[in-house]
Amino acid sequence: MYSSEINDFLNKGGISVGDKVKIESDDVNIEGEIMPKTEVGNPDTLVIKLENGYNVGIAYSSELRISLLNKRKGKIEFPKAKIRPNKDLPSVELIYTGGTIGSKVDYKTGGVYMLTKPEELLYEVPEVSEIANISISNLFNIASEDMSFHEWQKIAEQAAKSLNKGARGAIVTIGTDTMHYASAALSFMLKNLNAPVVLTGAQRSSDRGSSDAFFNLKAAAKIAASSDIAEVGICMHSSSSDDRCHFIRGTHVRKMHTSRRDAFRPINNRPIAFVDQKLNITYKDDYAKIEARPKEKVEAMTRFESKVALVGIYPNSDPAILDFHVSRGCKGIILEGTGLGHAPVSTIHDELNWLNSIKAAVDAGVVVGMTSQCIYGRVNPNVYRNLRILSTSGVVYCEDMTPETAYVKLGWLLGNYNAERAKDMLNKDIRGEITKRIEFDENFLV
Amino acid sequence: MYSSEINDFLNKGGISVGDKVKIESDDVNIEGEIMPKTEVGNPDTLVIKLENGYNVGIAYSSELRISLLNKRKGKIEFPKAKIRPNKDLPSVELIYTGGTIGSKVDYKTGGVYMLTKPEELLYEVPEVSEIANISISNLFNIASEDMSFHEWQKIAEQAAKSLNKGARGAIVTIGTDTMHYASAALSFMLKNLNAPVVLTGAQRSSDRGSSDAFFNLKAAAKIAASSDIAEVGICMHSSSSDDRCHFIRGTHVRKMHTSRRDAFRPINNRPIAFVDQKLNITYKDDYAKIEARPKEKVEAMTRFESKVALVGIYPNSDPAILDFHVSRGCKGIILEGTGLGHAPVSTIHDELNWLNSIKAAVDAGVVVGMTSQCIYGRVNPNVYRNLRILSTSGVVYCEDMTPETAYVKLGWLLGNYNAERAKDMLNKDIRGEITKRIEFDENFLV
Repeated sequence: MYSSEINDFLNKGGISVGDKVKIESDDVNIEGEIMPKTEVGNPDTLVIKLENGYNVGIAYSSELRISLLNKRKGKIEFPKAKIRPNKDLPSVELIYTGGTIGSKVDYKTGGVYMLTKPEELLYEVPEVSEIANISISNLFNIASEDMSFHEWQKIAEQAAKSLNKGARGAIVTIGTDTMHYASAALSFMLKNLNAPVVLTGAQRSSDRGSSDAFFNLKAAAKIAASSDIAEVGICMHSSSSDDRCHFIRGTHVRKMHTSRRDAFRPINNRPIAFVDQKLNITYKDDYAKIEARPKEKVEAMTRFESKVALVGIYPNSDPAILDFHVSRGCKGIILEGTGLGHAPVSTIHDELNWLNSIKAAVDAGVVVGMTSQCIYGRVNPNVYRNLRILSTSGVVYCEDMTPETAYVKLGWLLGNYNAERAKDMLNKDIRGEITKRIEFDENFLV
Repeated sequence: MYSSEINDFLNKGGISVGDKVKIESDDVNIEGEIMPKTEVGNPDTLVIKLENGYNVGIAYSSELRISLLNKRKGKIEFPKAKIRPNKDLPSVELIYTGGTIGSKVDYKTGGVYMLTKPEELLYEVPEVSEIANISISNLFNIASEDMSFHEWQKIAEQAAKSLNKGARGAIVTIGTDTMHYASAALSFMLKNLNAPVVLTGAQRSSDRGSSDAFFNLKAAAKIAASSDIAEVGICMHSSSSDDRCHFIRGTHVRKMHTSRRDAFRPINNRPIAFVDQKLNITYKDDYAKIEARPKEKVEAMTRFESKVALVGIYPNSDPAILDFHVSRGCKGIILEGTGLGHAPVSTIHDELNWLNSIKAAVDAGVVVGMTSQCIYGRVNPNVYRNLRILSTSGVVYCEDMTPETAYVKLGWLLGNYNAERAKDMLNKDIRGEITKRIEFDENFLV
């Protein structure tokens, strides 16, 4: 129920839930339908559904003026307090793991907290129940920064189990901050994948007017229920307005902004598909159809070597950091080099020369991979003399993988293969994570 | 001199240096003027100046066909083997430090090596001598990845010295991989700056047809010689075609691609100015004119604390890395947190909880700052409960600074102020490195 102030405000204007209204103040001027209050919403926030289907929340104040535009005809569709199963629709598993999409603001403290029931997520997006027959796996309720490979393993197991039991696709709702690490991990962990596994989340919690949760979830459900995609990817807003989501391959994606709704960007790749507000899917030209995909059962290869590290190289950086990681038993290290994949290897400043520490790590049997802190582009050991020195020291140049993808891949490889095999596979394409050399203009900021 | 094959090729067609020609093969179809061969060029590469003033190098092969379009009238302007001083032009100091712009390909090994004489840089860009009266400070010949604060100190000293002696501006030619660290360092080190200090370089060496060296250098010279700018910044290509350079504030810029000519992008900022092919400068709307700048002498505050570290936080990252840095005597640490500035602080996986290590570092007197690995956007300690825990532990949230700028700033602060003062200044704006909160759409991928 809305607060008594909002109820009074509506009653005085002869307005009921479902009516189309205009609301004005010095700051506000919008038209839309009054939405019913739901379990997860703030009673002091009036929720209005705009023409484009998007909900905005307006904090009630006595400054607001309301006028009736159209009385609603017929019965009001209240959000469902339960998910209504519909076996005629494709079955989709929603794997719930926490994150902002499963959080709400506690108006007492102003902080964002987690929902207690994942079902609440669907109450405000009844359209999802018209897209797919959703079942929910409530795995855990964990914040993005606390996600580790332990959680990725459980998600992969659940996804494989659900798909092997006949689910048409899977949605994973998850925190955004480390979503691209998780999407890379699931890409490697799920072998013979023959269905879409769609990670989604929200940059702004679902009780905010500007929340991206609803559209992201609808688009993810559409991809999971009916797309030709058979791989792991991230489905989030592709622009800062609410008009389009994109589905990006799980190994070629990165969170590139702290707060924007379109924070997730493809890196050295193009989105595989776009989903518009009407939930039409368009694919990139050359995307292969699902019929060509493996017919075997999905296999969850979830082993992961925890002793891996991602190490930045920057001016004045201390090469002893490598010795530290080796001393901690590290089995694999991904370096974030400068430019094309550089580390200082000259004797200009002896204490800053990384060569001996890199060689010592390689000699100790550690698999060392090189990526670029530029993020976009490709490392290349053949351009500069210093790079040739590095590549002959046993460092594996990781082509156009992001540091994050290379890190996750190396942990996965070392969990499943011996060091020699892992080293050999690190710069070979396994799950679409390494792309062929393409035009310069193509692989940047698409 | 060109190779005898190229000389024969030209002679047979009755073609001399300076003539306008058409050159064709299965791969090539271009029109332009035959350029003379210079000291730094490869004798087997025919250099053609295109209509837009851009030089392309064509590897000679017997497949090439050449036809004369126009015989050159008048005297040929050979590139100058010496810089011709012109005291009527603004005096600009070119501070030479190495990098790709000062490198060429050794065609025996295929590797890129450094030039021996910085003057060679200007031989192929005679236009620079028509923009400014250039004097060269040949500081060193060092690759980007080997640059440390020692070099930044010398560059800052030279820039202050030259400007205080009356130079209208300074150009710093420097390697691109760590150029944005250097531009941040010079921004902080140069106090009372009243003139442009323009860092430039090349993504592709100057003997390559696709080199960006020439236009970057001309644009940088124009900014240094005649702009209203009085700060440190980077002047490089702003698009992948050769039509425009931009000048970006030195504290708000990052190399975002390994190889593209437009790799340098403003982060949470807009370029201060653009320079087109005709060397016209346009400023962003609200840019203050140079007249308002300090009249004092430029002061080089070059002290720098070498014991600072930039530490990435990622799923499964080992918090003991902080203890390691503290044990090495580290005085300042910048964390690259996830999203809005997170580190794992829950007890879900005790061995992955960073809170105790962060607190121990703060308690040991280390200044700890938080940035975001998203790169774009702003950290914000007030959104999530976990972030509030972190901010009360003494971590300084670094607003919209990139991790790289925050790292350089902290080293500079700790070199010049005590820890308490440094901590206080870390998230206060000193050199334009912290911007006010702006619209979401404004601070992304401009």
